[in-house]
Amino acid sequence: MRILLINPNTTAEVTALMERVLAPQLPAGVALLPVTGRFGARYIASRAAAAIAGHAAIEAYAEHGRGCDAVYLACFGDPGLLALKELARIPVIGMAEASCLAAATRAERFSIVTGGERWGPMLHEFVASLGLGGRLAAVETVAPTGAEIARDPDSAIALLAQACRLTAVRDGAGAVILGGAGLAGLAARVQPHVEVPVICSVEAGMRAVLAALRDPPAKPTAGDFALPAPIGSTGLAESLAAILARP
Amino acid sequence: MRILLINPNTTAEVTALMERVLAPQLPAGVALLPVTGRFGARYIASRAAAAIAGHAAIEAYAEHGRGCDAVYLACFGDPGLLALKELARIPVIGMAEASCLAAATRAERFSIVTGGERWGPMLHEFVASLGLGGRLAAVETVAPTGAEIARDPDSAIALLAQACRLTAVRDGAGAVILGGAGLAGLAARVQPHVEVPVICSVEAGMRAVLAALRDPPAKPTAGDFALPAPIGSTGLAESLAAILARP
Amino acid sequence: MRILLINPNTTAEVTALMERVLAPQLPAGVALLPVTGRFGARYIASRAAAAIAGHAAIEAYAEHGRGCDAVYLACFGDPGLLALKELARIPVIGMAEASCLAAATRAERFSIVTGGERWGPMLHEFVASLGLGGRLAAVETVAPTGAEIARDPDSAIALLAQACRLTAVRDGAGAVILGGAGLAGLAARVQPHVEVPVICSVEAGMRAVLAALRDPPAKPTAGDFALPAPIGSTGLAESLAAILARP
Amino acid sequence: MRILLINPNTTAEVTALMERVLAPQLPAGVALLPVTGRFGARYIASRAAAAIAGHAAIEAYAEHGRGCDAVYLACFGDPGLLALKELARIPVIGMAEASCLAAATRAERFSIVTGGERWGPMLHEFVASLGLGGRLAAVETVAPTGAEIARDPDSAIALLAQACRLTAVRDGAGAVILGGAGLAGLAARVQPHVEVPVICSVEAGMRAVLAALRDPPAKPTAGDFALPAPIGSTGLAESLAAILARP
Amino acid sequence: MRILLINPNTTAEVTALMERVLAPQLPAGVALLPVTGRFGARYIASRAAAAIAGHAAIEAYAEHGRGCDAVYLACFGDPGLLALKELARIPVIGMAEASCLAAATRAERFSIVTGGERWGPMLHEFVASLGLGGRLAAVETVAPTGAEIARDPDSAIALLAQACRLTAVRDGAGAVILGGAGLAGLAARVQPHVEVPVICSVEAGMRAVLAALRDPPAKPTAGDFALPAPIGSTGLAESLAAILARP
Amino acid sequence: MRILLINPNTTAEVTALMERVLAPQLPAGVALLPVTGRFGARYIASRAAAAIAGHAAIEAYAEHGRGCDAVYLACFGDPGLLALKELARIPVIGMAEASCLAAATRAERFSIVTGGERWGPMLHEFVASLGLGGRLAAVETVAPTGAEIARDPDSAIALLAQACRLTAVRDGAGAVILGGAGLAGLAARVQPHVEVPVICSVEAGMRAVLAALRDPPAKPTAGDFALPAPIGSTGLAESLAAILARP
Repeated sequence: MRILLINPNTTAEVTALMERVLAPQLPAGVALLPVTGRFGARYIASRAAAAIAGHAAIEAYAEHGRGCDAVYLACFGDPGLLALKELARIPVIGMAEASCLAAATRAERFSIVTGGERWGPMLHEFVASLGLGGRLAAVETVAPTGAEIARDPDSAIALLAQACRLTAVRDGAGAVILGGAGLAGLAARVQPHVEVPVICSVEAGMRAVLAALRDPPAKPTAGDFALPAPIGSTGLAESLAAILARP
Repeated sequence: MRILLINPNTTAEVTALMERVLAPQLPAGVALLPVTGRFGARYIASRAAAAIAGHAAIEAYAEHGRGCDAVYLACFGDPGLLALKELARIPVIGMAEASCLAAATRAERFSIVTGGERWGPMLHEFVASLGLGGRLAAVETVAPTGAEIARDPDSAIALLAQACRLTAVRDGAGAVILGGAGLAGLAARVQPHVEVPVICSVEAGMRAVLAALRDPPAKPTAGDFALPAPIGSTGLAESLAAILARP
Repeated sequence: MRILLINPNTTAEVTALMERVLAPQLPAGVALLPVTGRFGARYIASRAAAAIAGHAAIEAYAEHGRGCDAVYLACFGDPGLLALKELARIPVIGMAEASCLAAATRAERFSIVTGGERWGPMLHEFVASLGLGGRLAAVETVAPTGAEIARDPDSAIALLAQACRLTAVRDGAGAVILGGAGLAGLAARVQPHVEVPVICSVEAGMRAVLAALRDPPAKPTAGDFALPAPIGSTGLAESLAAILARP
Repeated sequence: MRILLINPNTTAEVTALMERVLAPQLPAGVALLPVTGRFGARYIASRAAAAIAGHAAIEAYAEHGRGCDAVYLACFGDPGLLALKELARIPVIGMAEASCLAAATRAERFSIVTGGERWGPMLHEFVASLGLGGRLAAVETVAPTGAEIARDPDSAIALLAQACRLTAVRDGAGAVILGGAGLAGLAARVQPHVEVPVICSVEAGMRAVLAALRDPPAKPTAGDFALPAPIGSTGLAESLAAILARP
Repeated sequence: MRILLINPNTTAEVTALMERVLAPQLPAGVALLPVTGRFGARYIASRAAAAIAGHAAIEAYAEHGRGCDAVYLACFGDPGLLALKELARIPVIGMAEASCLAAATRAERFSIVTGGERWGPMLHEFVASLGLGGRLAAVETVAPTGAEIARDPDSAIALLAQACRLTAVRDGAGAVILGGAGLAGLAARVQPHVEVPVICSVEAGMRAVLAALRDPPAKPTAGDFALPAPIGSTGLAESLAAILARP
Repeated sequence: MRILLINPNTTAEVTALMERVLAPQLPAGVALLPVTGRFGARYIASRAAAAIAGHAAIEAYAEHGRGCDAVYLACFGDPGLLALKELARIPVIGMAEASCLAAATRAERFSIVTGGERWGPMLHEFVASLGLGGRLAAVETVAPTGAEIARDPDSAIALLAQACRLTAVRDGAGAVILGGAGLAGLAARVQPHVEVPVICSVEAGMRAVLAALRDPPAKPTAGDFALPAPIGSTGLAESLAAILARP
């Protein structure tokens, strides 16, 4: 079985990092097909970059989805998530969606620690759209950049742990998500310094993908996530135009 | 003064229809610059088409926004709205946003009549994101297509009026928005058959644009809609890449 | 065309101040008919004063509404707003209602800076009744009194700017409304000191009135804001009794 | 001890009816002082009438409150309730407020059966302002008028019972309030025909008043319901002007 | 008439304290039947203890309810409340339920001061389930233990007063509930030091019980709180098994 | 690794049915330890039965949890869920919790089809407590009993399919959960007759348990689900008393 891992930003190093972190989690017989966005911003840290990434994500699916058994939309904030769920015949899991649902089983209220201050309001909106707004304690945007982590991992860990402890105490969070592809694999090193569970968003998403693989739900033929009606288009990648024309 | 009218689908006839309906509303000294999406679906009636349209809308702004004084995002459902508000230094008004805010001053609860059944859940989500979910009585998706309107306008009017009356009585709507570029100008003909105010979304958006033109607010230099940090990109239209790199 | 400007408190100087600020905004052919409440508190800074002002506002409409084309209820907090919308055959715009709807197009979350600490809970309730409670960042009640502004305008501006900056940073407000007739015209002087848009409530209300004038909606003949059934009364001003008896 | 019973409409017969129904409930040593609104509509069945009644209610308190130990605002919809709570030094209980809080202890979700179709949206707003919007199953506005009840009581009972049963089954209401002064005393006759508890709003309010009398809470000296700051006024009844000037 | 007072923890001293505090409130002809939980934790300060207490409370009713006219579930947090309302043919009042509804008539927003930090999230959930989540300003868990109160009552009063003042100012609470059987009778001594009303939860619950006694509502024969269908069981107290088998 | 499967009702046949359905899902090296409630109702179809089951569930954990790696609370409605999450050092998954979170990834709005009409309001409350109330389309309580299924499986399947289709169309549900231990394994047979995904609650819970096993989160040492403070008790099973005394 094959999982299409879509990194909808355009930085291949981030895709590679996730592939590295996820490899040990793959059961026998399950392979990853990692794909980086063909166009868009290097990193997604604004509404504009996220809007572009929604398009890039569905193009990636149109281009590479054939023969895959599930889609893992691997950008914390999940640009294009509902469009993919509508368009794909296979299960689609978003990294932020899966992380928040996982956090909701571990605590009454959870927080997100991530990088990029513009993500504060964007993630509040995203979590509210999941219906979990009332269970979100806070979004702390103090994470180091990938470059900073590489340069001085110990300081990065200390900084992240401090942010987790802060939101646990100040906001009453019973669990904290380390959100973002760039933080892949750090939760395990942060956990010893924090009193409440620390969740790695990359791994939480992967667990949800594997669970969905084990029980692929029927594609609905009615309702919100049924295939959309065929529609002509112009100016799109050939694969995307084809899928819109004959979903 | 110049208003950039962005139709983010790729059907130029719809852009032309709106231009025709809006022309009489333009005060002296105000011009429209109508732009059709460069890429994307012919009509926007799915989440996938809307995701692409969000990208098309900000590219249209990057390409044509220079020298304009306001942006009118003229697709009912407002794909890319918040990204445009973030990116543009001039006021940005969405057609659905403006229509819902206008309806909210005319009734405790309002409904939307529009075409395309997939818009039902999509508009419920959109109105909820405005904070007005509790004031939305219903979304009725029974509108005729543009082709049908052209072929038999009287039947179309009768059909729309029936939908408006239905939601007024059944759902307690005190006002009804005829939502969608394709319904531009029909509200005046539907109104005589309906007991509550019928709002033309294309005209309601235009009134909000003109109000904003009269009092252009300062571009925030902090907060959600401040310009985003510069970011490199790949594979984008030159104008859009430039605006992301030097917002 | 004529706009009935109702100041529902009983201080004629406030009515005159608004008239002065609004005069430059009036298009050719549009006149203001400013009216001060016939009875009630000098200023409205309590629930009791607001309850009386609701009655005064509808009496003012009954007395002076004939021949007018729109009503501008010009007290931030909008006492009697829904009763006026029900009773009047012409558009009715409330100052707080219009300001909040305008702010909602400029920021995800907005704050209100106004005078009179009792307005804190009263405005929270008002904004919640609009459905926009989730988008209200805070109500800061630190504004100077009209007398203080007159005595030392520069200090007043500094004080207001400080309150705006405080709520922008502390509460994450992306726009701030300077709420209240007494603050008419100050937003332009406060704006240079604040990073997010500062909205003058008196001018925002006026823009909404002008937009409504341009497109006077049909009076509903059913639903919440249809004319109420005729009812006898006792002890009321003759004009108000007449309008209740034959709406 | 003395209870000021304020009927804020101007129909003395309704005041008298409530007095008759409440007399048997009065413990020894507790007297009613029934007061009818000095001005306003005969019945309150519109927002306009309710706005006037808010003023009438606080004037009634200003005129007759001296020497009383509690205020019973006895109009279902409670015009002027929060203003009275602010202004009075003694407990103030609203008829709809008390009925809804009582219903909330008897069922997960409750309905209101009352007269006057305009009360539908008005009561939805009122119950939402209590915070109990999520527990309101429905407002059924099918009650007979007082005149109809007098003419043919048996038909009225049958009609009310039918409305109660309808909302219990259709809307899942676990309790039903018969709301309104005009329905005083009918719940006992309706109850045998209905499977869920039927609550008389007039009696439920009285029970809350008696409970408050038994334990008169301290008047807050800070917060929302503390006395407002003194304020001058014009055109008001002398007693009301006095209480505003020296609360 | 007889009130079954259920203390669902297993500390008889707490039952006795409540009996002492409530005795002066009993009208002539009304007696208390105080019962302590047969099994469970000494104090209820965790979800586990509360889950057990829900069972203990309904067993207490099954064992002692015969011949009683109302049930007073006297643990702040009301374990088993809805099950008792379903199972009993007589009115059931919960201490926290009644206190919150009483507080809601005295302030727009109220706080709870109680002991045991785990009650913070538990009470937030409880108040939300009442529908009053939006009116809860805060839960302050700083109360002294019963033992501490006994040892040094004056310090305890000072500590509680400080918590009440803190939440009034910091959180804008217009009333404060002293929640918990262990704090019975202290509100009167705390009140003089606090600017907003201080409510004794034990007494507030009792007032609601007395109000219900005066007007015992019909047991619903349909809906949520109708008797459940008969069901066999195993391993339960004989009285509880009997009531489940023949409700 | 070992999963403690708690069936908190007292019908061993239901436990056995779940064991049978789940066996094929168990990966190599993972065993089930199925436990039936020691006391309580035969089936859980009332609030009273659910209250008792909360106690039975935590006793089952105290008695059998030693040596297990995860707890599966396998009653749709999850009695005692939060108490178990607090008390256990290993992951705890509730059947309804896991099913609702799974449904939330497959549809914007989902419904529950289950048996026992009293579960309607109980599940509405449960889903609201998860924060997903806004995504619950409906609870349909039309399921056949286990006995009926055994007697005539084809009719049962037809009945369930009809309920699923009804709620998909009437309520706009994009996915339907077949909720309840008694319906274990039927979803696969119902799915072919329904246009939207049909989710087996027993299997959905199991998938969540397996996902948790793969990544056992650290037990929090602070916050809501940290171990509670030690507390003495009386009248409890020895194992439960011990765990409360030394959590």
